[in-house]
Amino acid sequence: MPGSADRVGACAAGCAVWGPSRIEARGVSGKRGGRDVLIHGRQTRTLWPTADGGVEIIDQTRLPHEVRIVRLETLADAVAAIANMQVRGAPLIGVTAAWGMALAMRADPLDDNLAASAASLKASRPTAVNLAWAVDAVSARLRGMAPPEREAVARAEASRIAEEDVANCRRIGEHGADLIEAIAARKGGETVNILTHCNAGWLATIDWGTAIAPIYVAQERGVRVHVWVDETRPRNQGAALTAFELGQQGIDHTIIVDNAGGHLMQHGRVDMCLVGADRIAASGDAANKIGTYLKALAARDNGAPFYVAAPSSTIDWRIMDGVADIPIEERDEAEVTHVVGAAEDGQLVRARVAAPGSRAANFGFDVTPARLITGLITERGACAASLSALKELFPDLAGAY
Amino acid sequence: MPGSADRVGACAAGCAVWGPSRIEARGVSGKRGGRDVLIHGRQTRTLWPTADGGVEIIDQTRLPHEVRIVRLETLADAVAAIANMQVRGAPLIGVTAAWGMALAMRADPLDDNLAASAASLKASRPTAVNLAWAVDAVSARLRGMAPPEREAVARAEASRIAEEDVANCRRIGEHGADLIEAIAARKGGETVNILTHCNAGWLATIDWGTAIAPIYVAQERGVRVHVWVDETRPRNQGAALTAFELGQQGIDHTIIVDNAGGHLMQHGRVDMCLVGADRIAASGDAANKIGTYLKALAARDNGAPFYVAAPSSTIDWRIMDGVADIPIEERDEAEVTHVVGAAEDGQLVRARVAAPGSRAANFGFDVTPARLITGLITERGACAASLSALKELFPDLAGAY
Repeated sequence: MPGSADRVGACAAGCAVWGPSRIEARGVSGKRGGRDVLIHGRQTRTLWPTADGGVEIIDQTRLPHEVRIVRLETLADAVAAIANMQVRGAPLIGVTAAWGMALAMRADPLDDNLAASAASLKASRPTAVNLAWAVDAVSARLRGMAPPEREAVARAEASRIAEEDVANCRRIGEHGADLIEAIAARKGGETVNILTHCNAGWLATIDWGTAIAPIYVAQERGVRVHVWVDETRPRNQGAALTAFELGQQGIDHTIIVDNAGGHLMQHGRVDMCLVGADRIAASGDAANKIGTYLKALAARDNGAPFYVAAPSSTIDWRIMDGVADIPIEERDEAEVTHVVGAAEDGQLVRARVAAPGSRAANFGFDVTPARLITGLITERGACAASLSALKELFPDLAGAY
Repeated sequence: MPGSADRVGACAAGCAVWGPSRIEARGVSGKRGGRDVLIHGRQTRTLWPTADGGVEIIDQTRLPHEVRIVRLETLADAVAAIANMQVRGAPLIGVTAAWGMALAMRADPLDDNLAASAASLKASRPTAVNLAWAVDAVSARLRGMAPPEREAVARAEASRIAEEDVANCRRIGEHGADLIEAIAARKGGETVNILTHCNAGWLATIDWGTAIAPIYVAQERGVRVHVWVDETRPRNQGAALTAFELGQQGIDHTIIVDNAGGHLMQHGRVDMCLVGADRIAASGDAANKIGTYLKALAARDNGAPFYVAAPSSTIDWRIMDGVADIPIEERDEAEVTHVVGAAEDGQLVRARVAAPGSRAANFGFDVTPARLITGLITERGACAASLSALKELFPDLAGAY
């Protein structure tokens, strides 16, 4: 829920404050220590530090059916939260990992644990490069420092990365909203239909989101938008998280199965595709949730612009050939063979949808070649998906190139 | 379950005979009148007439969790079975509709009911052209006939259409297996990896199937195949029905989400795509389950051959522009927002996967342009997806062209 007024759930001083009054969320409610958790209409972040040195997150595996706050006390808690996808989305994974380093330093600030904790966090999920980026950023700050200082510095560094993420996402929102406004102008103010895949909203970051941030900013500017939300099997982050976000924010949207986008584009019902990324090669090839590549192909076949929105921490400058060299996570086949949802009585149930005895494969991501991407939207503006355009925008980061 | 030996469940004389002994099916069992229904290892059809003038079908909405036989006694039963997708798959819909005409004539063989019943069946689902084709074939036979003769003639005509479907599917299997064998030869006998979407196996027809028939024939010929089975949201016909069929037949297969095929093709893990069709325009444009078009785009982008297998009853000679003119069914949004599966205890449960309050759209089919189709596989052989090739293969059907 973007917007800086009326913020609860995360304050700069590292405390978690939930407002006392109850606000109805459509079908959503949650409890934490006897106090109602506010989502609807109130600013909430995905992660916040607590005054006593811990970290709290929204358990995204329970959304949209339940808003459950989970406390992370240890490195192992942070690793598990990332691996189990209680937090997910490349930017949020990065910030969670930074806080994981702080939790690790609280328990044992010596060099061995510093190195082991960094390795453990980096191994928790393989595809998002922001994870390694954030862990390396914290590690670099701590390495030359006396162990007793490390916890406090790690906390400060994690907070800094989180605030930077919020600011970068807001900037991505501004730059992307310019593109949406241009389409709206070409359509004479008619509704702009945007297709998105997976969740790259505020739930994937600390606030605002990447691909959804431009939609939130467009809403602020009074541009009329409607969002086609790919449900995003196997974990349904679109139907569960993106639809939840958009609904809470009052943005018109329609959930579709992942199969439907091509048909919609064939019939001119998509003005623009807007997705996030987990890792962008220096060439502009972009790894994102499995199925993104298929939408990019359909966009190209039907002349719809296809944009990838991500902060520069998502760029992996060491990789040129994204299809060949970005590692693609393979996850448990049970995510494919079984589905979790809410039964009539509101209880979460897990049901097998696959034929008994049949096995499944579960690839987490695919890579969309740069040639299919109309543009990248970063915190410094939109650019072509190419090495030369990325170098021009980020001369300070491009390094050897 | 193709293979002519040891057939149960459908005999030419119009009786339903289920074998008395129980054969373990992996996780599957069913009851009918106290006798065990055999699937595993025994020949079963999807629909068969009974001696007393009714029709029995396998309720495909319960598969793979339960094999339930449902009796159709009236026109309304047949219309409901088609609309509710207890029978589905263009060829099976056609045969069910033909039997629906026979049931209608049993109740009232007069002209008014003949016309009304045909209209009612044609309206039950809009996309599959085999439905109208079969209803028209039966109607044409009955129109010049005295009402008292109509029921018996309709039954004979429905049986003829069913047997013709079986024979056509077997021929599609032979022609398609030639293509699979050629790929196997090029790979030096290595396993041929085939990607399929939705269910175009024996469950979509009376027996053998369309897209899966070549795989069954390839198995007979000793060709090594492995099938990537798209789960096929929203109704999961791939994960539920195709995986069930292949498992029962002992064919190596892996279920994937609909999002995964592009990634597999990028990495050379698909040798061939093989799908069915619900309606093929005279130009070769093919309507099939929503999402087929996206796989065709990925096949083209990666040089994988993309074949559409269907009997000639699927061709709509009146339509040239499939994308513009084939009607696309829109179904209940609840098929998208909710999922049905088997809970731990085996009970079927229905669970909401979408955010509460969010709406969904549910398009049943999309159209793959002929330019993306490597070839059509029909009962008369494989040909290019073009009017000229179709005319050459079916000069007797091409009519005005």
